[in-house]
Amino acid sequence: MSELYVEDPLAFWCNNYGLSGAEVVFLGVPFDGTSSGRSGSREAPNSIRAMSYSLETYSASARRDLKELKMADYGNVIVSPGDTGESLRRIKAAVADIREKFPVVVGGEHIITLPVVQALLRRHPKLQVLHFDAHLDLKEDYVGNRYSHVTVMRRLAEILGHKMIVHAGARSFSQEEHEFARKNDVLKPVANLAEFRFKGPVYITLDMDVFDPAFAPGVSTPAPAGMLPQEFFSLIESIHDGMEVIGFDVVEVCPPNDTGNVTSLLAAKAIKEMLLAFKH
Amino acid sequence: MSELYVEDPLAFWCNNYGLSGAEVVFLGVPFDGTSSGRSGSREAPNSIRAMSYSLETYSASARRDLKELKMADYGNVIVSPGDTGESLRRIKAAVADIREKFPVVVGGEHIITLPVVQALLRRHPKLQVLHFDAHLDLKEDYVGNRYSHVTVMRRLAEILGHKMIVHAGARSFSQEEHEFARKNDVLKPVANLAEFRFKGPVYITLDMDVFDPAFAPGVSTPAPAGMLPQEFFSLIESIHDGMEVIGFDVVEVCPPNDTGNVTSLLAAKAIKEMLLAFKH
Amino acid sequence: MSELYVEDPLAFWCNNYGLSGAEVVFLGVPFDGTSSGRSGSREAPNSIRAMSYSLETYSASARRDLKELKMADYGNVIVSPGDTGESLRRIKAAVADIREKFPVVVGGEHIITLPVVQALLRRHPKLQVLHFDAHLDLKEDYVGNRYSHVTVMRRLAEILGHKMIVHAGARSFSQEEHEFARKNDVLKPVANLAEFRFKGPVYITLDMDVFDPAFAPGVSTPAPAGMLPQEFFSLIESIHDGMEVIGFDVVEVCPPNDTGNVTSLLAAKAIKEMLLAFKH
Amino acid sequence: MSELYVEDPLAFWCNNYGLSGAEVVFLGVPFDGTSSGRSGSREAPNSIRAMSYSLETYSASARRDLKELKMADYGNVIVSPGDTGESLRRIKAAVADIREKFPVVVGGEHIITLPVVQALLRRHPKLQVLHFDAHLDLKEDYVGNRYSHVTVMRRLAEILGHKMIVHAGARSFSQEEHEFARKNDVLKPVANLAEFRFKGPVYITLDMDVFDPAFAPGVSTPAPAGMLPQEFFSLIESIHDGMEVIGFDVVEVCPPNDTGNVTSLLAAKAIKEMLLAFKH
Amino acid sequence: MSELYVEDPLAFWCNNYGLSGAEVVFLGVPFDGTSSGRSGSREAPNSIRAMSYSLETYSASARRDLKELKMADYGNVIVSPGDTGESLRRIKAAVADIREKFPVVVGGEHIITLPVVQALLRRHPKLQVLHFDAHLDLKEDYVGNRYSHVTVMRRLAEILGHKMIVHAGARSFSQEEHEFARKNDVLKPVANLAEFRFKGPVYITLDMDVFDPAFAPGVSTPAPAGMLPQEFFSLIESIHDGMEVIGFDVVEVCPPNDTGNVTSLLAAKAIKEMLLAFKH
Amino acid sequence: MSELYVEDPLAFWCNNYGLSGAEVVFLGVPFDGTSSGRSGSREAPNSIRAMSYSLETYSASARRDLKELKMADYGNVIVSPGDTGESLRRIKAAVADIREKFPVVVGGEHIITLPVVQALLRRHPKLQVLHFDAHLDLKEDYVGNRYSHVTVMRRLAEILGHKMIVHAGARSFSQEEHEFARKNDVLKPVANLAEFRFKGPVYITLDMDVFDPAFAPGVSTPAPAGMLPQEFFSLIESIHDGMEVIGFDVVEVCPPNDTGNVTSLLAAKAIKEMLLAFKH
Repeated sequence: MSELYVEDPLAFWCNNYGLSGAEVVFLGVPFDGTSSGRSGSREAPNSIRAMSYSLETYSASARRDLKELKMADYGNVIVSPGDTGESLRRIKAAVADIREKFPVVVGGEHIITLPVVQALLRRHPKLQVLHFDAHLDLKEDYVGNRYSHVTVMRRLAEILGHKMIVHAGARSFSQEEHEFARKNDVLKPVANLAEFRFKGPVYITLDMDVFDPAFAPGVSTPAPAGMLPQEFFSLIESIHDGMEVIGFDVVEVCPPNDTGNVTSLLAAKAIKEMLLAFKH
Repeated sequence: MSELYVEDPLAFWCNNYGLSGAEVVFLGVPFDGTSSGRSGSREAPNSIRAMSYSLETYSASARRDLKELKMADYGNVIVSPGDTGESLRRIKAAVADIREKFPVVVGGEHIITLPVVQALLRRHPKLQVLHFDAHLDLKEDYVGNRYSHVTVMRRLAEILGHKMIVHAGARSFSQEEHEFARKNDVLKPVANLAEFRFKGPVYITLDMDVFDPAFAPGVSTPAPAGMLPQEFFSLIESIHDGMEVIGFDVVEVCPPNDTGNVTSLLAAKAIKEMLLAFKH
Repeated sequence: MSELYVEDPLAFWCNNYGLSGAEVVFLGVPFDGTSSGRSGSREAPNSIRAMSYSLETYSASARRDLKELKMADYGNVIVSPGDTGESLRRIKAAVADIREKFPVVVGGEHIITLPVVQALLRRHPKLQVLHFDAHLDLKEDYVGNRYSHVTVMRRLAEILGHKMIVHAGARSFSQEEHEFARKNDVLKPVANLAEFRFKGPVYITLDMDVFDPAFAPGVSTPAPAGMLPQEFFSLIESIHDGMEVIGFDVVEVCPPNDTGNVTSLLAAKAIKEMLLAFKH
Repeated sequence: MSELYVEDPLAFWCNNYGLSGAEVVFLGVPFDGTSSGRSGSREAPNSIRAMSYSLETYSASARRDLKELKMADYGNVIVSPGDTGESLRRIKAAVADIREKFPVVVGGEHIITLPVVQALLRRHPKLQVLHFDAHLDLKEDYVGNRYSHVTVMRRLAEILGHKMIVHAGARSFSQEEHEFARKNDVLKPVANLAEFRFKGPVYITLDMDVFDPAFAPGVSTPAPAGMLPQEFFSLIESIHDGMEVIGFDVVEVCPPNDTGNVTSLLAAKAIKEMLLAFKH
Repeated sequence: MSELYVEDPLAFWCNNYGLSGAEVVFLGVPFDGTSSGRSGSREAPNSIRAMSYSLETYSASARRDLKELKMADYGNVIVSPGDTGESLRRIKAAVADIREKFPVVVGGEHIITLPVVQALLRRHPKLQVLHFDAHLDLKEDYVGNRYSHVTVMRRLAEILGHKMIVHAGARSFSQEEHEFARKNDVLKPVANLAEFRFKGPVYITLDMDVFDPAFAPGVSTPAPAGMLPQEFFSLIESIHDGMEVIGFDVVEVCPPNDTGNVTSLLAAKAIKEMLLAFKH
Repeated sequence: MSELYVEDPLAFWCNNYGLSGAEVVFLGVPFDGTSSGRSGSREAPNSIRAMSYSLETYSASARRDLKELKMADYGNVIVSPGDTGESLRRIKAAVADIREKFPVVVGGEHIITLPVVQALLRRHPKLQVLHFDAHLDLKEDYVGNRYSHVTVMRRLAEILGHKMIVHAGARSFSQEEHEFARKNDVLKPVANLAEFRFKGPVYITLDMDVFDPAFAPGVSTPAPAGMLPQEFFSLIESIHDGMEVIGFDVVEVCPPNDTGNVTSLLAAKAIKEMLLAFKH
């Protein structure tokens, strides 16, 4: 079969290295079992893969090209629909297998950040988290369930310490969550984030509902009056210097709610710009 | 507020009795936690409620009117997204509360039939099940999960006995399921069902994917080359005499995959015709 | 039936009081009979109800929670499709029944504001109207019809007096309407509105097409280059002090044109923030 | 401008004659003011025009080609949204203007058949109507409105006489309508229609919901378990000989509910086959 | 990376062999450059891949399992948008590379059948073609273009001989095409096909618009009143014995026009059943 | 036929002059043959026509009314699907036929700008081009094809000279394109454009993907973080004085990807405002 004429059906673009040689690894996590509104983020990894081909690999702002990085697409974790515990165990095991490579994890819903961070803690015991989200996800439980997309930051805070997580872009939360975040002084306006200094390794979790629904309609839980993409990309550009980012995830894209896949496209661009900003 | 001018926002039509006086009870079960393809059947109870208003209450074939029955809409069970066990417990408790009334349960996905039948067994220990479905749902597990929409009939068979469940309309299954069903002689062609005689109380579970996807595109797991609605309604008309039906459910409608809500509409009509055929 | 496990199918969230005890009343008006573009705003009351559950009841900017208010959902007015006169009479009668309670009316299209204001005039004879809209709705008629969504402000102006209506956000109108509004000095840039002082009771009518179609694609008559949600919410925050608002409506949401229900969601949030700003 | 290279944006295909020379006239009636479910049939004339280009002009069953007929597209009636009376007057006037030409009227909803038949009665005082529809449309009123898509056949029956209207395909109606139709012996199974003999001029009104929703999902009021297209086309072929058809309409196509415009396409094909069967 | 937990993002299911060991080869051809209606069949190969996972690998009618076959997914041909000639050359080259393996080619639109058959002719110089299609595709040209989805069978007939192509299911064509097909006696009713005897190797080309639009709405050029899936599958079962099928294609699925991907699903099932019927 | 009651089915609004008397000519070009992502811009001319009726003809910013201009809609060019060369020849011939009139060309995809400018060069040999686009379209070829929507500006630059084309709004391109544009100093930030002075006749080509996907989701190749409509309209207002614009096109609207036709609506408004700014 002539290489010239045939291509792989679907993988993240710039899937240019085998698993062993790669420095950056994409991992899809099609799990949306705890979503309380509309589900469908299980379709996001393949949807974001498909839309990645609409982007140029070169970034005008970073003046770098994705082709300079050694990347591989590891496929999707096989989760167990209806069994949240087993699914989280599998996600944690898959991330642990990535070892020293730079992980780009694509959800799925936000609870997946929990096992990803748990796996990364082995190598980075003092990991901090930068959390972009319209919500705080600091609730104690949801209809009795303590492992949910609305509780994930509470569970992480219990493991990492409350002050190790910085929340940016939050605008929809309960009174209790509001007080919790203010008490710990971890709720930051996006405008001030450029001045905030992280010390040590940072993991970024980007819940796409941090953007205004006009720019990201295809999310599970849209929240009006949100961040503009331009603000996000400017911020990434301005903070990339002093930060030691060791991996990131992009979660809560919900393709069935999307229009012309613009949310998957924005997620793909966020992945590209974060990689070119943080991975050297 | 003048009764003439204002109506309730949404309830099954013919919601004409309070909870205590009703003989027939609608119960919505918006649970789709184990769906392995597209989820979304959590939206079905409200979607079927909305489409019920497009139907006449009178049935030309039954020559009866739904208004003759004393009916109430009990609302939706509050399930726990991500916690299948807790959700099944709540469904079972809600059905148990209905007591001697005739239950019309609207899923949600097929696993909900398990707790519904468990609750009904208290009053009907020798309950048989008539199972309309494109699939047999007789798998042992799915990615390790034994409580799934693809295993529900296996779990029920373990409780009721293998020969107490009759499968109609099945056309998509594994070799193992095929052999299991043939060994127990419980796989019936729809055409022969009119001659089959049930003795004692029967519960009907109608998975809407038993219909051809042309007539029911809005299901979680469509299977080509299925039953026509006309066949189903003729069958109901022909079997209603000798059968003692004590309740039924309609499951697997998936509104996000639907077109103009035709699947919700067909489900509403199936509810209407089964009620007028079986509830006296 | 255990209260813990079952909920009402659909009502505005925070529907926490019976009709007699409530201070705030939601009323749906599913009428779209005069729409000249795409119709479908008849579906808005139920769509906005459904999306209200995606919002937190707490507002970070107001630092209040909706649960502090005594609210009830009165259901939908039963209108007469094809008979505009009879439909307007019924809407007026339904609002009159609300009496001294604070009305939150959810259309439906803009002509419904006419009977609502007519009913409120009995108690507030000097009522002023603050009109958010991409259009002026000051046309004399539309294809001969004087009672239309494009004439409603002309009809209201004839009743209240031309200077009693302030128009904000208008950007699409005829030359005649433009001159009419300028002559009466009632066309205000949104930016200047915070300095405008209303004296006496004010009714707010919010036509959702005042927002840019990026933020509110699901309207009957979108108009490019409109207001941002952030501008609206900042305005509400800044004007709430000096104003005596006695009720409001939200109209022209058109769910069939919407994407992932983001317009219904924005409408729900506008209702929440206006209530927390104006109802004490 | 070279004729070879440019075409009219949109008109029914085979729009090959000017208004004066044509024998067959297409007239669009974008009125859906009395629709009680989803509206949107106002978009049908243009949608059916667009889909007509997907069809061949030649009919294999009729062995004739549409190009043999002298046809013109007269455009759409300008109706008055919100004013049913004025709209019906305009439709009647537009049809009266067609005079001796063969009218092909494309709705819009079913109430439009009333003014069309009223206009045709001048030349055909003993006109009979063949009514294809899932419903009988024989209700006395709807929410007080006597001129509605659910009352149109009752109004027509009052003008023409009850026995002058034959109903085919009806399957959804109230008990009162059922008795009314049986008393007058005007409810015909489609299978028997080929044997029925009309004497004198006949007008055909085709409500597209007579087809099963699988084949015609894009209608305002779908009704499960309906006619197959094959049955309809076979019937037209078998009855065309003895019948003097003087015009027809196709109503209730609702493009917003459609999938890939298959209902508009089926409507276009029905127009083509009826023309080739009945117009010589 | 643990095999247990991670899977390939997307390939036809049962992609169980490497390229060298496989006996059956899937090849996607995402070309829709000559489509005259709606385009979009370029998305079909990946859409059919995705839906293949909804099917069981076991066939109840064939009593065989796809896993018994050695299969590989070769990916998609890289075509040149806007350059039909270059694209057809690449398709031909890709198929030639498959050599002695059994090709399952998934379009794209119908013109792709031309280079596929050209490549297969080298090994099968007396190849016959069985053509399932609503149309005859026997036009001389389309707007001057002789290489189009509406001319493909004319071009093939010029190469193979007019009597080497049998047309089944055709119902939409011009008078000239009708006469051409009748003159050569190659237009067969589906009902008679079971009795027709092919001698020597046969290639099957399945244009999905042969099915009624109710069952296959997602095609580029739907044609009402078509074949039922049940008819097709029964036919395949009944003709598989005497026929030497050496490959097949499935074309004209158009995902943007589809509903819940039911057309892609039907295409996947047709592939499965044809493979299990014809490949031993 | 009474003029009062019937209107043309579809033409650009303000189609108020016959072809000979018009000064401004609309020409639709439904060609999308080289699109490399999703196609569908062939549907844009009719979609933009339909949405033009949602706009007022009066412009509040220009204080002019479109009715003051003598305009005609010339219909759509009949292109040849699959034959790019022939299609470009036909477009060029159609534009040449317009002669001295002001052309408003509505694509279709961006390659159509090539034949349009070629035809205009006869009368304006020193024509400059102002190019609004998210991309530079300066690639040498795409999969071997030199005449593509991604190469059109490279081909135009070869004809006009590299410095005759100014690019505004570009944000997605390859490293090679970036260097090419910087070397020639033709890449302008939108903010600086108002100060740029064109001398001599200018043709404007507006690729709608220059807008952020939130405002223009319905394009073939969306690119996140783009221009706001408000910026564009302010720019047009500020530059209209010193510029001699002799025609313009609007391309790459892709209706199948759109939401409630907001992109077609924005395109219609851009046409209106550019006409009122540049055509005197």
